[in-house]
Amino acid sequence: MGRLCAAVLLCASVPAPAQQLPLMPWPAQVSVGQGTLRIGTDFSISIAGAGAGDARVKAAALRTMMRLARQTGLPLPAALPKTEEAMLNIVIEKPDHKPPQRLGDDESYALSIASDRIRLSSDGPLGVLRGLETFLQLVTPCLGDQPGFCAPAVEIHDNPRFPWRGLSLDVSRHFIPVEGIKRTIDGLAAVKLNVLHWHLSDDQGFRVESKKFPKLQQLGSDGWYYTQAEIRDVVAYARDRGVRVVPEFDVPGHSTSWLAAYPNLASKPGTYQIVHDKGDPAGVIDPTRESTYKFLDGLFGEMAKLFPDEYFHIGGDEVSAQEWTSQPKIRAFMKLHKLADPKALQAYFNKRLQKILAHYGKKMVGWDEILAPELPRSILIQSWRGTKSLAEAARQGYTGILSAGYYLDLMQSAAQHYAVDPLGGDAAKLSPEEQARVLGGEAAQWEELVTAETLDAKLWPRLAAIAERFWSPQNTTDVASMYARLDSTNRWLEWLGLTQRSNLKLMRERLAGNMPVGPLNAFAAILEPVKGYERHRGPYGSATPFNHLVDAIPPESDAARMFGMAVDAYLSSPNVAAAAELRAILAAWSKAAEDVRPLLASNSLLAEDLPVADEVTKLCGISEQALDYASSGSPAGWKQNALDAIKDASRHTANLLLPFAPAVQKLVEVTR
Amino acid sequence: MGRLCAAVLLCASVPAPAQQLPLMPWPAQVSVGQGTLRIGTDFSISIAGAGAGDARVKAAALRTMMRLARQTGLPLPAALPKTEEAMLNIVIEKPDHKPPQRLGDDESYALSIASDRIRLSSDGPLGVLRGLETFLQLVTPCLGDQPGFCAPAVEIHDNPRFPWRGLSLDVSRHFIPVEGIKRTIDGLAAVKLNVLHWHLSDDQGFRVESKKFPKLQQLGSDGWYYTQAEIRDVVAYARDRGVRVVPEFDVPGHSTSWLAAYPNLASKPGTYQIVHDKGDPAGVIDPTRESTYKFLDGLFGEMAKLFPDEYFHIGGDEVSAQEWTSQPKIRAFMKLHKLADPKALQAYFNKRLQKILAHYGKKMVGWDEILAPELPRSILIQSWRGTKSLAEAARQGYTGILSAGYYLDLMQSAAQHYAVDPLGGDAAKLSPEEQARVLGGEAAQWEELVTAETLDAKLWPRLAAIAERFWSPQNTTDVASMYARLDSTNRWLEWLGLTQRSNLKLMRERLAGNMPVGPLNAFAAILEPVKGYERHRGPYGSATPFNHLVDAIPPESDAARMFGMAVDAYLSSPNVAAAAELRAILAAWSKAAEDVRPLLASNSLLAEDLPVADEVTKLCGISEQALDYASSGSPAGWKQNALDAIKDASRHTANLLLPFAPAVQKLVEVTR
Repeated sequence: MGRLCAAVLLCASVPAPAQQLPLMPWPAQVSVGQGTLRIGTDFSISIAGAGAGDARVKAAALRTMMRLARQTGLPLPAALPKTEEAMLNIVIEKPDHKPPQRLGDDESYALSIASDRIRLSSDGPLGVLRGLETFLQLVTPCLGDQPGFCAPAVEIHDNPRFPWRGLSLDVSRHFIPVEGIKRTIDGLAAVKLNVLHWHLSDDQGFRVESKKFPKLQQLGSDGWYYTQAEIRDVVAYARDRGVRVVPEFDVPGHSTSWLAAYPNLASKPGTYQIVHDKGDPAGVIDPTRESTYKFLDGLFGEMAKLFPDEYFHIGGDEVSAQEWTSQPKIRAFMKLHKLADPKALQAYFNKRLQKILAHYGKKMVGWDEILAPELPRSILIQSWRGTKSLAEAARQGYTGILSAGYYLDLMQSAAQHYAVDPLGGDAAKLSPEEQARVLGGEAAQWEELVTAETLDAKLWPRLAAIAERFWSPQNTTDVASMYARLDSTNRWLEWLGLTQRSNLKLMRERLAGNMPVGPLNAFAAILEPVKGYERHRGPYGSATPFNHLVDAIPPESDAARMFGMAVDAYLSSPNVAAAAELRAILAAWSKAAEDVRPLLASNSLLAEDLPVADEVTKLCGISEQALDYASSGSPAGWKQNALDAIKDASRHTANLLLPFAPAVQKLVEVTR
Repeated sequence: MGRLCAAVLLCASVPAPAQQLPLMPWPAQVSVGQGTLRIGTDFSISIAGAGAGDARVKAAALRTMMRLARQTGLPLPAALPKTEEAMLNIVIEKPDHKPPQRLGDDESYALSIASDRIRLSSDGPLGVLRGLETFLQLVTPCLGDQPGFCAPAVEIHDNPRFPWRGLSLDVSRHFIPVEGIKRTIDGLAAVKLNVLHWHLSDDQGFRVESKKFPKLQQLGSDGWYYTQAEIRDVVAYARDRGVRVVPEFDVPGHSTSWLAAYPNLASKPGTYQIVHDKGDPAGVIDPTRESTYKFLDGLFGEMAKLFPDEYFHIGGDEVSAQEWTSQPKIRAFMKLHKLADPKALQAYFNKRLQKILAHYGKKMVGWDEILAPELPRSILIQSWRGTKSLAEAARQGYTGILSAGYYLDLMQSAAQHYAVDPLGGDAAKLSPEEQARVLGGEAAQWEELVTAETLDAKLWPRLAAIAERFWSPQNTTDVASMYARLDSTNRWLEWLGLTQRSNLKLMRERLAGNMPVGPLNAFAAILEPVKGYERHRGPYGSATPFNHLVDAIPPESDAARMFGMAVDAYLSSPNVAAAAELRAILAAWSKAAEDVRPLLASNSLLAEDLPVADEVTKLCGISEQALDYASSGSPAGWKQNALDAIKDASRHTANLLLPFAPAVQKLVEVTR
């Protein structure tokens, strides 16, 4: 397994070269020195410099002590020493401006670890927060004789490539309680992301308490929403960790929850209720009535106070034009105001909104659809359509961020997201000045099929790979290195309390009931959920349980990826040892599929997965035959039958797919 | 593996007979009916009866909804329906007396599950809390066709055997933050324990904020203590879950932390500091000065308000007589008051304390040492010495509880604790009237070698077996059934957020650094920590890291226990299949010991475990030889060499032992 090991894990027990340091995102500049620093119970942190008074830095230093204690098991004091002498010396050159944190605030830092001291220096407080995460990632068990923990001697000079590095998180389709939001913020900060874009309203629910319009949460939700005190708590929590919170209130579409509360806002007269199930009727806000703008002014004024960030997201995506054009009153309004089409009507609406927001000191953010020449260049475009759309905005003078390619709910691999660059595609052709308008990107997590229980597993670790794309130099593109570091990062994040691995384990145990879960774990390790919007085709809604096997596995199978690599290695240089390695994997998988059968047959939640076990057995058998026939040649008709069977195995029973099928196909295709 | 499976796990996929229901503690009466109840998203709870207004019951019902949602993955509302129609109907016959919860409050309940309805009835609110736990334990995946969760039709009539069922928890040697205390209370309530005996002070730290004597926490601790607000929060949290909180302030011994704050309390003049390391000098409070009683009256008066329970624990154990007899002033006092010996002096002290506590409406609790004829019969004796001491107290008319045999820090097996009965030994010979004075028992967790990180693993799941001893009928003694249900319970408790498995996993990953943890997990599964006070022999203190392999494994190895059973089965009826089963286990263990070597050699924290891997290899080899020689006879000298090697393997390197060594010895001993 030597080859796999080197590619997938940091197996080295010798001092690690820079590329094997378990850092993610990878810093702008790293050089590894001689020796290591030993971390013991005398570890301490001091803070000095003109910016030393920043409360965020002191809090971050205290958190670092506690996190280091967790990561190492060392009994460290949860206090900073009174002196300026410490093992880790923080120096902040300048005091910060007053809150709130702003786009473009300096996040650069320098981290220097020698064998007896650590120096972390930065111009501003945010750099310290980023540098402390880098330091924590570097702490691992010492290699020498004395038991303990060490950090390698390094010199790191680091700064982000893009100033806007975010996660767009939908809490409307499934509500995420405050503790889940805070946990997510911990994770964002750990991988140096700096924006939580909080998608707080949609057809399925309005998730913030409004004191001005209380029906929004009372009738516009199922009872789950954040109180204003909770919002303030989360915003402060995020600020403490160097994360900006940008709220989104999606209008004029995706707003059925608003109409359930205030039907007078609707374009089409009638009563509304929040969307519970896929396909339930949805409405659109009426942009032609003055009362709409009065309402929005009131609400946005209230929310502008609650969310101190300079940016405010109004959504603007996927408006059903028919909701407008079917209404004579609205058609008359369009005619009167010379608004040629629904697009022009939406531009009119957005222009009014932009003025309201400007009045409250906010810059407007919206999805691609809001782009229109009538709007000022101060707005920010979030592109779900892609770099073509983003480049178009930049050419017109608008700032923008990329989300296309970073939709975590599509169950793509980390490598697929990693390959997408905000300055790739059409954006690569922009002038330097235009490129500077591309401020970064946001991963997006839509929650139709995600619950509070599965959130972490749907975010992590892939989000860390996207974070690297937004932070690290553009040429940081080695996929093998990324996966190696992602594996370390995935484990490291658990010390923060993230549950991407532990919750899935619990869910599989739930499925196993009172039978041993081992066989299910082995079987689950070679499966993946179906991709893209395939699972959305089935029925789902707020009463759908997400407690099936497909919910209890990560989006990406490490085992299948490693098998794919082993197949490629074998095909590029067929030899007995490589074939034996493949056979060992296939035998283990066949056994896993066999061992899990009694469990799958044992209860109603797992029975749907029995055909998947059949398919695993079949594909393993075909692979072994293909290896047999690689040199000897296959019997007549075998190859076509095998290819048909592989195709057949892609029926996606129980929303599961066999991610190693493409590698099996390669093995079959090369048989004679 | 059929035999092992039946003994250790609930493998049946057919309707389970009563003895296989995953209930712990086992109810007083259970009968299994026909059919099952299906639990879907329409699950709801109603509360009726004269006692329906109890706030604890409403809160418990809401928690049940949320816990059921976690256990099943069903999206359930976190609200109770307005109507009295629900799937689970709670009926409480009588309103409760006012708080606080009292010793002997009715905890009985009846739970009836039919195919369409559940009825949970009780005389008082506490019975409902107990019955809801029973219900939650019964919910598992349905066996039929439709995916979902079910509970079997049952009739349960249940009530506890003893009214005092507790855990004594030391938070002085290592501080446990509030979240750990709350998590522990969740666990206590889940297995129907009803007392948290909070050992809040000892030589190493005074852990409660006193406003009257603030130096107690300021100088008498390392900075870790509970504020009064936190204490009130915990007490309310516990009461909500039917758990009484009994505080312990240990005097006159185990009180060095008090003396660090107020040296005038000391018997021997001088300055004191809290004990940091094993062997640091300790002091004893001076019982001869009136100022001592003035201080204690002030402190106990303050604490009596903070802890509403009727009982108040003053410790009283392990007083160093020399601290008194060495002082001329104290000797003079004893002479003057005709106190013949230090025991009499302590009785004098306790009598004064008892009066102070009585003044504040409290009944005094203390360890065996406080038993003295001068004290009134209202006091309660907690016995660390055993049933002989407990029986003696009962004969003299004192109430008592047993802790001897339930010391969880000794790393004994669940079976060992399970075999101890509060009415066993000398207590079995008491008259019924005397036996009634034995109110129950308390497990005890002393924390010299336990930290907040490892607490759960040192408590659970063994504490659930002890809970069964205190709750279930005396004849509930089937060890195989206990282990089968303990396994389910261990997993079930994780839904409450208990970390006895997840934290150990994380700790092993920490040890593995950036190498795969799988081999370490396989190796760790066949090890146990050394028993009793053996590990205490080494040095330890507040700066000792508890992050070695011995800290990252449970007290008891399931694998070793199962191997022991397989060896017994083989020896009672030697046959080829049974031998093959043993050989398969031994081969897997040999492989685990081999596979883990590179990892053990890879870093400084694991290197100490390499000799343990050697021993595993050696014992597996001996076992295989013993199987070979079972019929053919062994070569001359082999048997003695093998027995010597087994003895040799008990060196307890790195505080680890090989718990399967006794079974290996059995195999060797029967060879010819």
